[in-house]
Amino acid sequence: MGDLSRLCIHTITNKPWSLPEALQAYSDQGIGGVSIWQNAVEPYGAKEASRIIADFPLKVVSYVRGGFFPALDQTARRQALDQNRKLIDEAAEINAPLLVLVCGAEPNQSLLKSREQIREGIEILLDHAQAAGVNLSIEPLHPMYADTRSAINTLGQANDMAEAIGSPAVGVAVDVYHLWWDPDLEAEILRCGKNGNLDAFHICDWKSPTVDMLNDRGLMGEGCIPVKTISQWVEAAGFHGFIEVEIFSNHYWSMDQHRFLEMIIDAYKKLYH
Amino acid sequence: MGDLSRLCIHTITNKPWSLPEALQAYSDQGIGGVSIWQNAVEPYGAKEASRIIADFPLKVVSYVRGGFFPALDQTARRQALDQNRKLIDEAAEINAPLLVLVCGAEPNQSLLKSREQIREGIEILLDHAQAAGVNLSIEPLHPMYADTRSAINTLGQANDMAEAIGSPAVGVAVDVYHLWWDPDLEAEILRCGKNGNLDAFHICDWKSPTVDMLNDRGLMGEGCIPVKTISQWVEAAGFHGFIEVEIFSNHYWSMDQHRFLEMIIDAYKKLYH
Repeated sequence: MGDLSRLCIHTITNKPWSLPEALQAYSDQGIGGVSIWQNAVEPYGAKEASRIIADFPLKVVSYVRGGFFPALDQTARRQALDQNRKLIDEAAEINAPLLVLVCGAEPNQSLLKSREQIREGIEILLDHAQAAGVNLSIEPLHPMYADTRSAINTLGQANDMAEAIGSPAVGVAVDVYHLWWDPDLEAEILRCGKNGNLDAFHICDWKSPTVDMLNDRGLMGEGCIPVKTISQWVEAAGFHGFIEVEIFSNHYWSMDQHRFLEMIIDAYKKLYH
Repeated sequence: MGDLSRLCIHTITNKPWSLPEALQAYSDQGIGGVSIWQNAVEPYGAKEASRIIADFPLKVVSYVRGGFFPALDQTARRQALDQNRKLIDEAAEINAPLLVLVCGAEPNQSLLKSREQIREGIEILLDHAQAAGVNLSIEPLHPMYADTRSAINTLGQANDMAEAIGSPAVGVAVDVYHLWWDPDLEAEILRCGKNGNLDAFHICDWKSPTVDMLNDRGLMGEGCIPVKTISQWVEAAGFHGFIEVEIFSNHYWSMDQHRFLEMIIDAYKKLYH
């Protein structure tokens, strides 16, 4: 992994850049893949974005992010499904093999209810996703996001749900930021690797202290997450896909993005030399 | 539980008050118990604090907080043990039947290593705690505190550790703020209730949004934690001890503390009418 062919960057990591700026910078550095966020596509529309992307030698790894299924009323849940169908179509348009799902949660109902609505939402989308050739990846989120962002907070829960749904179009996305603390993480990574559900692997770091619950993620190596060890578990589970850097950070977004990209590449090379 | 005989307040909840001010206000309201934080004792010393407490008709429910065992070097780990011995003695002095353990974590070593050091620390303290008649309660902390505050982040882990240590002087403390998101919570509460390890039950709420990772806890009813449901699990597990309100909140600390105490009592009565 010493070269950058397995490195993938999420466009949100370099949020100040437009889609063409990000694609140009990643290509110039010899980075292999890119995960495209919806906000980067929006100014162009998916068709035009697809043409822009085609000019660069980058593999589109995923489209981010669908989900947000739970809601108190059925109208809102139907709107969420429509939005997800649109995102699946956009993913297909930009040749993204998978749509990452931030499953959602509704603070005014129980987590159990939200989980039922998540499962129902995914099951309703299955035909549409399979017809489009886009996989749906359940990304468990850190328990600190259980109020509004996701009622799926451990890899065990994501694995349970993916297995219960039992479709080849549904898998899980492993993000070290959300899962590093979990004593069952190694076993659960092995589990989804073995059964073919391990779709994606996201890295960054947990800064100590973390000053913002959403936008203070760290660069690999500056925090307390054993990224190398977790990477080895992911490899041992049979995953040899892209290693995706996904960093939300007010700090890093405020700096020169070319300099930040160099720091990401340095951190990546240190990890996987 | 309509009356306040099972209600207990943690002194930190009314941080602006001195120990005598807090004890006076709780007594005036007919509250049954108090959990005493070290910072409330410090200005007086434990002996003098004990005399102050004896003037009020309040049951001391716990002393908060020991722990913080992990450290990179042995000297620091020994100092932590000395500090815990001092806290056990202070707990005995103020007639607190238990010392709550915030177990600690060291961001520059693995969680596994920190957990080993936690277990070792507790085992070393057992004789001292038993001689003093003070139980040690492992409080699992929310995974967002896994970097520096605790490597024990689920009730399952706390139960595992308490059972592995296997001493009548070691139990667990259940705090809804840390554990509400856990899909295994009901089963793990039942587990520690059945085996006699359920020492304490702490309540507050999770505000949505939460603006500070440490000091933005909510009053019961204003957030998304199903406090009533979790209370029923705790009752069903055979726990009939005090219901402890523990709220760290810059917001509430900035308001009139008598008014805040009334709000706590109202919220408590609404929950347990």
